[in-house]
Amino acid sequence: MYVILVYDIGEERVGKMLKLCRRYLNWIQNSVFEGEISEVKLKELQFLAKSIMVLSYDSIVIFKSRNEKWLQKEIIGKEKNELDIFL
Amino acid sequence: MYVILVYDIGEERVGKMLKLCRRYLNWIQNSVFEGEISEVKLKELQFLAKSIMVLSYDSIVIFKSRNEKWLQKEIIGKEKNELDIFL
Repeated sequence: MYVILVYDIGEERVGKMLKLCRRYLNWIQNSVFEGEISEVKLKELQFLAKSIMVLSYDSIVIFKSRNEKWLQKEIIGKEKNELDIFL
Repeated sequence: MYVILVYDIGEERVGKMLKLCRRYLNWIQNSVFEGEISEVKLKELQFLAKSIMVLSYDSIVIFKSRNEKWLQKEIIGKEKNELDIFL
């Protein structure tokens, strides 16, 4: 399936979460990822993400589509952030 | 069309951007919005968003689909943040 994942988490956990999500999905922008992923791999990602998150503070939103790719994607403003250099 | 919008902007501009996006789309989580919107209204939103943004620092990602709703949406962790009270 095709998913879009967005996280909003405490700064001290961003590095870990970014590294994790990049193992499963394509990084689009700061906290936004997309990609084709199997149900099993997505469950794995969610499980590992929860182990990084502070659930009372952090959040993740996942949009799932079985058979449809988004037609268009548009980015306004700054390209990917500087963290890219270190990961 | 149906869109998902995610912003990543400096904290001092978050309040303004949140207020703006909520005039056009449904707020899902912190910096994530979705909804049906016309091409004209989206252009208007993008124009106003750019006037709030510092383009060398902030960013917005917009996913657009002409005729397809996402089948599933899942939220892990914290529900909408406290800003909701003030807006």
